[in-house]
Amino acid sequence: MKHGEKLPSVRQLSKELGVSLVTVQKAYQQLQQRGYVESFQGKGIFVKSTNQKEDVDDLHTSWHMLVPDYVPRAQSLSISQPMRNIRYNLGTASIHGNLLHTEWMKKTAMQVIEENPHMLGQSSSANGDLEFRKAVSDYLQSKQLSIAPEHILAVSGAQQGIELVAKTFIGPNDVVLMEAPTYPGSIDIFKSRGAQIIPIPVEQDGIDTKMLLKLCDQYHPKLLYINPTFQNPTGTTLSVKKRKELVDIAESYHFLILEDDPWSELYFEEKPPAPIKSFDTSGHVIYLKGFSKFLSPSCRIGALVAEGPLLEKLVAARSISDLGSPLLTQKIIAGLLQSKELNKVLQNLRTDLKNRAKQCVQLLHQCSSLLTYRSPSGGNTVWVKLPQNVHADLLLEYCHTKQLTFLPGSACFPTHVPNQYIRISFAGLPLDGLKQSMKILCDTINSLSSTRNQYSLENYPIF
Amino acid sequence: MKHGEKLPSVRQLSKELGVSLVTVQKAYQQLQQRGYVESFQGKGIFVKSTNQKEDVDDLHTSWHMLVPDYVPRAQSLSISQPMRNIRYNLGTASIHGNLLHTEWMKKTAMQVIEENPHMLGQSSSANGDLEFRKAVSDYLQSKQLSIAPEHILAVSGAQQGIELVAKTFIGPNDVVLMEAPTYPGSIDIFKSRGAQIIPIPVEQDGIDTKMLLKLCDQYHPKLLYINPTFQNPTGTTLSVKKRKELVDIAESYHFLILEDDPWSELYFEEKPPAPIKSFDTSGHVIYLKGFSKFLSPSCRIGALVAEGPLLEKLVAARSISDLGSPLLTQKIIAGLLQSKELNKVLQNLRTDLKNRAKQCVQLLHQCSSLLTYRSPSGGNTVWVKLPQNVHADLLLEYCHTKQLTFLPGSACFPTHVPNQYIRISFAGLPLDGLKQSMKILCDTINSLSSTRNQYSLENYPIF
Repeated sequence: MKHGEKLPSVRQLSKELGVSLVTVQKAYQQLQQRGYVESFQGKGIFVKSTNQKEDVDDLHTSWHMLVPDYVPRAQSLSISQPMRNIRYNLGTASIHGNLLHTEWMKKTAMQVIEENPHMLGQSSSANGDLEFRKAVSDYLQSKQLSIAPEHILAVSGAQQGIELVAKTFIGPNDVVLMEAPTYPGSIDIFKSRGAQIIPIPVEQDGIDTKMLLKLCDQYHPKLLYINPTFQNPTGTTLSVKKRKELVDIAESYHFLILEDDPWSELYFEEKPPAPIKSFDTSGHVIYLKGFSKFLSPSCRIGALVAEGPLLEKLVAARSISDLGSPLLTQKIIAGLLQSKELNKVLQNLRTDLKNRAKQCVQLLHQCSSLLTYRSPSGGNTVWVKLPQNVHADLLLEYCHTKQLTFLPGSACFPTHVPNQYIRISFAGLPLDGLKQSMKILCDTINSLSSTRNQYSLENYPIF
Repeated sequence: MKHGEKLPSVRQLSKELGVSLVTVQKAYQQLQQRGYVESFQGKGIFVKSTNQKEDVDDLHTSWHMLVPDYVPRAQSLSISQPMRNIRYNLGTASIHGNLLHTEWMKKTAMQVIEENPHMLGQSSSANGDLEFRKAVSDYLQSKQLSIAPEHILAVSGAQQGIELVAKTFIGPNDVVLMEAPTYPGSIDIFKSRGAQIIPIPVEQDGIDTKMLLKLCDQYHPKLLYINPTFQNPTGTTLSVKKRKELVDIAESYHFLILEDDPWSELYFEEKPPAPIKSFDTSGHVIYLKGFSKFLSPSCRIGALVAEGPLLEKLVAARSISDLGSPLLTQKIIAGLLQSKELNKVLQNLRTDLKNRAKQCVQLLHQCSSLLTYRSPSGGNTVWVKLPQNVHADLLLEYCHTKQLTFLPGSACFPTHVPNQYIRISFAGLPLDGLKQSMKILCDTINSLSSTRNQYSLENYPIF
């Protein structure tokens, strides 16, 4: 057919070819989407001239854009953020390889493989390798947690553990209580399950339990997600009194507590209190221990503790998701947990992180008297309140142009979003990099803060 | 208070103590659940005698049973099935360690760690390690698939890949087309997303494309899940003609094809056709390659191929789920894919599996003339139709008493469930174990088949 020629009507062609109306309609839609024809309402469909034909690559992409998905927007946006040109990363709460004992990890990994090469041809059961679970059980004893190996489930990192609990127990409109601020990765998970999220403020000694109690009367919570020790992002630690209170409240209102504990090994002075789970006698607490922060992050292995039917359901959900964690990485983490050098490695890591924290706080102190923060007593982040006239999102935009990033506090709030906080990770960079980054950050804060004409989102050109 | 004493009313106590009605109600519920009090409608709540108090352990469990969950029943049931006393496992479609080259895996893994120990202190990005993605890209060239590393996403096994696609693109009432029978693990995933599943029969040359076309007019499918090469469980391979047809249909109706390809390396005679993805010029096919069947199952690593916004959404969903696959296992699989010995290893594995298949078919042949099956041309399973008077679920119950298991065909059908099929895995056991297992299976089939008084579920005592 030639340019401008009219195509037969859908009804007519359907009759001629003996196919359904829908089939012809779809074919015409496809021709149109590929740019071969164009439709004029009331007139019909006509062949387009070839130079009008759109680029195939664009079409490819444009079709993809039409596929509806179930990914929460927050995370999609953070993925598309400009991370490529970042030289100074104060955003990721990881620990730099320089601070980790990779030689020890190497020695242990090689030994594990050397001693049991047949394991490379095997896979793990969905709940996890028994040797790994025994090693975790022994390790948890040192944290005043007496847990049998059969109550432990291997997970591929704490993040997977949170998602596993969410997909097993949380569905549309279930009420989830969260600290505000909290770990951003957990917010996306519960949002993607359609949960109703109720934020609870964090005080100096952890979550506000009075407010929690009040909200329990008003809502019917199904789960509380909490990060009680060196909380991400505020660094606060929940008091023993409040730990016990939480268990009592959970028992009274029959909700689950998901206790996420990636940091408790990394204290700078005093050993933090025993996990909430250690006060739980009625199976209300699911305990989650990630090993990526102090053993090998390359293995991405964690452990989840739960009992009875709760555990059975989690194992069932797990076997649908991915059949279980890799056997090899479980064996290596078991080897590291059983290593005689573990205590020494942890002591060194604590000292190094403590020094880093000190450096970071000194740099903040030199930076501006208008900043508010607390010297961290564990973990690897500092939570900073900016001067009143500096908007965190605006600061981030400026810092991006200088190849620097941090975590804006807004990412940590599940609902209402204050714009005055930022989280700085002080252990993700080598020391030089930290110093340079802090200098750039401080210069930018000071230049924004001192500008008479106060910046706001309204007069900022990019927004 | 004493046995038989009446508690104050909820309203009264609420007033006395100055707490909300709900709080008192909860407290009373808790006392009741713990067995301290009992309620009589219209009369009130009374203190129970102590010997009536239920066992605390039971209560612990009974509370857990009340927590609603979102796990599909099918998988929960299969988890609770009696797998503990199984000696003869013809059910799991894995490959026994004896048939895998664990020495080669060991050598490669040690080399990878030796050469780059720092990697043990690092983690992978959510889309996967670049070296791994390059190795996969090179490897896929040999399968007539030209895929750039940036279109590849590392997954922790093919099962995780299926779940990732499902959770990104499938939600309640979305229409998913599936082969009937199909891989059981995929059914649970799509069911757990609330999908409407439309089954399509499998013919000798793969899925019935005529039926598919008809159903596309009737429904608006969002995704077709297909296992085109040595299909699990039937062992059939989709013809080239049908592969091309599928791409055309997906383009016309704008649905996604999820091509799951764990078996195509393991052919016994002729190399199977190139993947469906190789005929896809418009980004409608998401290709999934698991490496656990022919490289190290202990690493549980696979690769997913997709383009443009589809891929971006998958990466975003992935970073919510578990932040990405372990770096270590990606590095090892990359090493195995790049190994000069890979071709030799694959050739040996093909020969071994072919011999196993031959043995298995001979044993079936000797067993009964009433069995129907096709000699497999690849993969590691045989799909068997039982004699008309033998019910597969009943056979399984009998076999369990003899410590033997297999996969009942019913597990492979998403909707209507025929009861005459079973799937036998011939590579999961050492050769002796296979022979013993087949003998037990055949004896049980023959004894059930020859019984004049035909067994049926109705007169079977256990059901």
